[in-house]
Amino acid sequence: MSSVVRVGVIGYGYWGPNLVRNFAECPGAAVGAVCDARPERLALVQRRYPAVEVTTSAEELVSRADIDAVIVATPVDRHFELALAALRAGKHVLIEKPMTSTSTQARRLIDEAASRGLTLMVDHTFVYTGAVRKMREMTAAGELGDIYYYDSVRINLGLFQHDVNVLWDLAVHDLAIMDYVLGQTPVSVSATGLAHVAARPENIAYMTMFFPGSLIAHVHVNWLSPVKIRRTLLGGSRRMVMFDDLEASEKIKVYDRGISLNPSPENVYQMLVGYRTGDMYAPQIPLSEALSVEAAHFVACVSQGTRPLTDGEAGLRVVQLLEAATESMAHQGRLVNVGRLVNAGSLEHT
Amino acid sequence: MSSVVRVGVIGYGYWGPNLVRNFAECPGAAVGAVCDARPERLALVQRRYPAVEVTTSAEELVSRADIDAVIVATPVDRHFELALAALRAGKHVLIEKPMTSTSTQARRLIDEAASRGLTLMVDHTFVYTGAVRKMREMTAAGELGDIYYYDSVRINLGLFQHDVNVLWDLAVHDLAIMDYVLGQTPVSVSATGLAHVAARPENIAYMTMFFPGSLIAHVHVNWLSPVKIRRTLLGGSRRMVMFDDLEASEKIKVYDRGISLNPSPENVYQMLVGYRTGDMYAPQIPLSEALSVEAAHFVACVSQGTRPLTDGEAGLRVVQLLEAATESMAHQGRLVNVGRLVNAGSLEHT
Amino acid sequence: MSSVVRVGVIGYGYWGPNLVRNFAECPGAAVGAVCDARPERLALVQRRYPAVEVTTSAEELVSRADIDAVIVATPVDRHFELALAALRAGKHVLIEKPMTSTSTQARRLIDEAASRGLTLMVDHTFVYTGAVRKMREMTAAGELGDIYYYDSVRINLGLFQHDVNVLWDLAVHDLAIMDYVLGQTPVSVSATGLAHVAARPENIAYMTMFFPGSLIAHVHVNWLSPVKIRRTLLGGSRRMVMFDDLEASEKIKVYDRGISLNPSPENVYQMLVGYRTGDMYAPQIPLSEALSVEAAHFVACVSQGTRPLTDGEAGLRVVQLLEAATESMAHQGRLVNVGRLVNAGSLEHT
Amino acid sequence: MSSVVRVGVIGYGYWGPNLVRNFAECPGAAVGAVCDARPERLALVQRRYPAVEVTTSAEELVSRADIDAVIVATPVDRHFELALAALRAGKHVLIEKPMTSTSTQARRLIDEAASRGLTLMVDHTFVYTGAVRKMREMTAAGELGDIYYYDSVRINLGLFQHDVNVLWDLAVHDLAIMDYVLGQTPVSVSATGLAHVAARPENIAYMTMFFPGSLIAHVHVNWLSPVKIRRTLLGGSRRMVMFDDLEASEKIKVYDRGISLNPSPENVYQMLVGYRTGDMYAPQIPLSEALSVEAAHFVACVSQGTRPLTDGEAGLRVVQLLEAATESMAHQGRLVNVGRLVNAGSLEHT
Repeated sequence: MSSVVRVGVIGYGYWGPNLVRNFAECPGAAVGAVCDARPERLALVQRRYPAVEVTTSAEELVSRADIDAVIVATPVDRHFELALAALRAGKHVLIEKPMTSTSTQARRLIDEAASRGLTLMVDHTFVYTGAVRKMREMTAAGELGDIYYYDSVRINLGLFQHDVNVLWDLAVHDLAIMDYVLGQTPVSVSATGLAHVAARPENIAYMTMFFPGSLIAHVHVNWLSPVKIRRTLLGGSRRMVMFDDLEASEKIKVYDRGISLNPSPENVYQMLVGYRTGDMYAPQIPLSEALSVEAAHFVACVSQGTRPLTDGEAGLRVVQLLEAATESMAHQGRLVNVGRLVNAGSLEHT
Repeated sequence: MSSVVRVGVIGYGYWGPNLVRNFAECPGAAVGAVCDARPERLALVQRRYPAVEVTTSAEELVSRADIDAVIVATPVDRHFELALAALRAGKHVLIEKPMTSTSTQARRLIDEAASRGLTLMVDHTFVYTGAVRKMREMTAAGELGDIYYYDSVRINLGLFQHDVNVLWDLAVHDLAIMDYVLGQTPVSVSATGLAHVAARPENIAYMTMFFPGSLIAHVHVNWLSPVKIRRTLLGGSRRMVMFDDLEASEKIKVYDRGISLNPSPENVYQMLVGYRTGDMYAPQIPLSEALSVEAAHFVACVSQGTRPLTDGEAGLRVVQLLEAATESMAHQGRLVNVGRLVNAGSLEHT
Repeated sequence: MSSVVRVGVIGYGYWGPNLVRNFAECPGAAVGAVCDARPERLALVQRRYPAVEVTTSAEELVSRADIDAVIVATPVDRHFELALAALRAGKHVLIEKPMTSTSTQARRLIDEAASRGLTLMVDHTFVYTGAVRKMREMTAAGELGDIYYYDSVRINLGLFQHDVNVLWDLAVHDLAIMDYVLGQTPVSVSATGLAHVAARPENIAYMTMFFPGSLIAHVHVNWLSPVKIRRTLLGGSRRMVMFDDLEASEKIKVYDRGISLNPSPENVYQMLVGYRTGDMYAPQIPLSEALSVEAAHFVACVSQGTRPLTDGEAGLRVVQLLEAATESMAHQGRLVNVGRLVNAGSLEHT
Repeated sequence: MSSVVRVGVIGYGYWGPNLVRNFAECPGAAVGAVCDARPERLALVQRRYPAVEVTTSAEELVSRADIDAVIVATPVDRHFELALAALRAGKHVLIEKPMTSTSTQARRLIDEAASRGLTLMVDHTFVYTGAVRKMREMTAAGELGDIYYYDSVRINLGLFQHDVNVLWDLAVHDLAIMDYVLGQTPVSVSATGLAHVAARPENIAYMTMFFPGSLIAHVHVNWLSPVKIRRTLLGGSRRMVMFDDLEASEKIKVYDRGISLNPSPENVYQMLVGYRTGDMYAPQIPLSEALSVEAAHFVACVSQGTRPLTDGEAGLRVVQLLEAATESMAHQGRLVNVGRLVNAGSLEHT
């Protein structure tokens, strides 16, 4: 492989242009080709990047000898087939989130990449933002103490998707953030939701995740909100964090607040619960574009053969949760064990 | 009965002083006596209201001939017993929310009051605020169209209660508001939550309510949040409302936003989903204290024998939902039919 | 003097009830008498405080032997006469802000109190808030570096006063805060403003104050704003502070931001200006009521003969600035030397 | 002239790329050439727009036969010379704001364009935003009643300019907005400010403008603020507007609030002042990019020979105010008559 990683991008819709721009500007990378079924989208590529090859055929792109890595940025239902073809053609792969439509598909891609020694990475963009990295840093360093809850609201007036429910469109961000920040995997899920347009998937959903120990997580997603909210609370025994992604500055606020537990003077088996309130501070967060950090990380992993932060396993864990939540939601909150689905996926896969 | 309604208040803790002050200033009402087990609380009453009788005995207060109505403002586990005694003594009754600890108790109080022709009212305070009345007005007039969802967040760093979980402390407000604003009753509930202090009830809870048709409701309550939030979204097919109780002015914002459904030109069985965004307006809301409006309403109901807006039935419906949610939460989101519990309550009661 | 300071309050309008309540609850103090010309106001006092004497005659109150100190809470045009009478009757005095209508009057009160060895204090309430004390603490400790500017906006839809312009009503708060926090006195003032109702004083005003060195201050006050804003910026060479009094928590935010000056590598006489941006933090501020802290301070000063934080000199400095600003405003921003007026005042006074 | 207006852009620094992008995408326009003294900036142009000619010589660009109009986007001290050369070469001209360094220069450009029948437009970008157009629409339709005040705060941590003070950098936006929205010209100015870095111009400034009648305007600009604020209040006798440019939606809020004046029942010569508070609404504002609207307007003016909304006279009026304010600031608020400077400018020019 040359010293420059040459990427081919399949899908030039909403997210594709951002991927092309960031890889075009990424040192050590070059965009070799872009594929889209729509000629007018390819014309756009040509106007902006005259040196980039364009094609309407994904097979052609995947089989190009001058391409080292393939980026899949199509609707989710084509992720599996395209990524598999790319891996089989010996290309490294970066897939837009969610990784695949099913956990079985995700596991097959993981195996395929592993057996071929290729890099497989999932575009969990938020993991590469300064704010989420700050949260990870604090939890990993124990600054928050024991984590008690993760609570996220991600709502706005959004496009009603035809094929996936609002969990697969919006909650996927939170599941990717949680996977990175918490370093723990939920054991079970209870989700509820509703579809307000006939024959469309759910446009509003609530998802509770249970972890071992005293951690609980909840995600509220909604395509039918008059206001846009992107706010996450991360509560710990020592400190608590609010992450508001719509704040221009001060995206992360750290509160020295919580409960204090003191042994009761009257009863040694009892604890007295008290308040603890202290300062708040908003650490300075680097403002570099997440996708540019992510592109550099992908290039480094491909060049050096190292494992990506958001590898296929991370993508799989997120898809498993989405599957479990969708099943739970279909039964109005019925508890679904995430582990069971993992096994089911593994079985199906063999 | 004299032309003035003379009330006796049992319980002078957190809420009692507000009740006494508002009834003291309410035309057509007078505070005759206050009862509390703690002498220092009664001393406070005497300093502020030298003319009011004080007693540590609830029985004494209930049996006073110069008292027309009894207000029960004690912890919830004594509501039933005290309200029942008052009704049996022929007094009208106003009970702080939640009405009782069980739906069976609530139904017995309703029957007792009915058989004696006495007024029974529950202190669902929010129903008497300008903001909630505005929401009711808009839903009743059809200004919001079909109601799609009610979503509320009610969180802060709060006192961990010993006896009740966070639903009975905080979600009760939302259930009372919904009961009044929506004019519909949920058929089933799925709730999740967690206790972060051993041997204490849940301090964080999520509660989804399913209604007939395309309405869903969700309430998030939390005693362990570093920030205080009191924000409700009410989404309709024509307009949407955000109620933020922490806003000094502009508590209610009405958004002319939503989805627009158009028959598809290609397929008569399909609808095209589009956005609709328009103006926002914040109607002027009267700022009178809710409790003063409520006191006047109670006095009017007692004097004229009319049914209170927040009568025993409203109190019962809220308690039924809290029971169902608590049961569901104990089973990590298991769907609980609200109707079943209603019947159970009725059966037990007979 | 007895061990308890007995106060008499003249004026039971908007602010008087707060003064009476706080002195009534202040250890070491007792409210002996209240005076107001309006019988209905006195009736209110009697209902709330049966033990307090009431009178419509200020002379009577001032001459009572059982009163140690007089609090003047009338409109400003009566401050001088009443405070002077109280001092002459040997009473300690606390005057609502602004201290007097003219600096000449203020100086005469200072002299009178000094010659009699009596305490003279001005009710600059904000000086006794946790937020302002925090700002003072930071400036005094050098945490902000050199102070570059004080900028305050204090606007709302307010009552148009008949007798004083908006500076005497609203800017007086900022002048009192600045006097305490900055520890410096302006040398000159330029103010502009306008009256929008015929025959009324200015309802909107802008006031710039020049200090020795590189400090400038500006205050914007307005009775005709559709929104309420109470926001002060305090810019220093090391750190900057935003004080937003309408924030429930986080009233004070400290920003580690500013400019950095580096000697130019090319020209030793030049400095390169750069940005410096860092964390923000919001220190925990004690929430005790300012007036309660202030009442305790007044009682301590009277009892121990110590000098109040907000003594007559502080009151005088604020009145001098208001005089200078009013003169400047009458001439559309003409620069007025504050020192000149001090001298003028002194001359008149002799 | 061909049916397409071919523009040449001088200056490819901060604002130039936005101009090139918008004219490149503007129907009826084409970017023919770009000039910048820095080769690395021209390389950037070539990479993005391979078809556009580049040059380091402004003279060459101005003299090109295939260019119909010249856009001057250099630092302000070169505006006059370059615009004059372009007009003399028969080109239409669009100049970035502020138009020129002096009002004399502005008037000469106006005369030159008039005598040659060429379009002269100034890039007062805000005039082409949906929010400012909405404000203009409301004032023009009388919806706000008589305008009482314009008050703007435009502060942030900003680059300290070497050559111009903060008024020429930031207040210029407000003066351009006011010129369009109010339709009135101030008669005099009082400004104050301070420089916190030796040998640099003022970095903080306050500017009051007096109009005939009961209108007053004030602008606060500051390069040394820890927070970014872009907030304008427009107060009228019937309604009031708040324009917050940092709000993602709801940039414009209209308040049905103000004072009500009623003839006094006691004195026919007196007016009673009362409050009036009502609803607030936030009209939907079109989100199209201002510069794209402005480019289309320039093309239309050039093609049809119509007068631009922000013509040379508008640019001149803004420069006159900046001159007057700078003079006033040098004398600590001394009142400067704007008319006098106009005359002075005219005299000098002849």
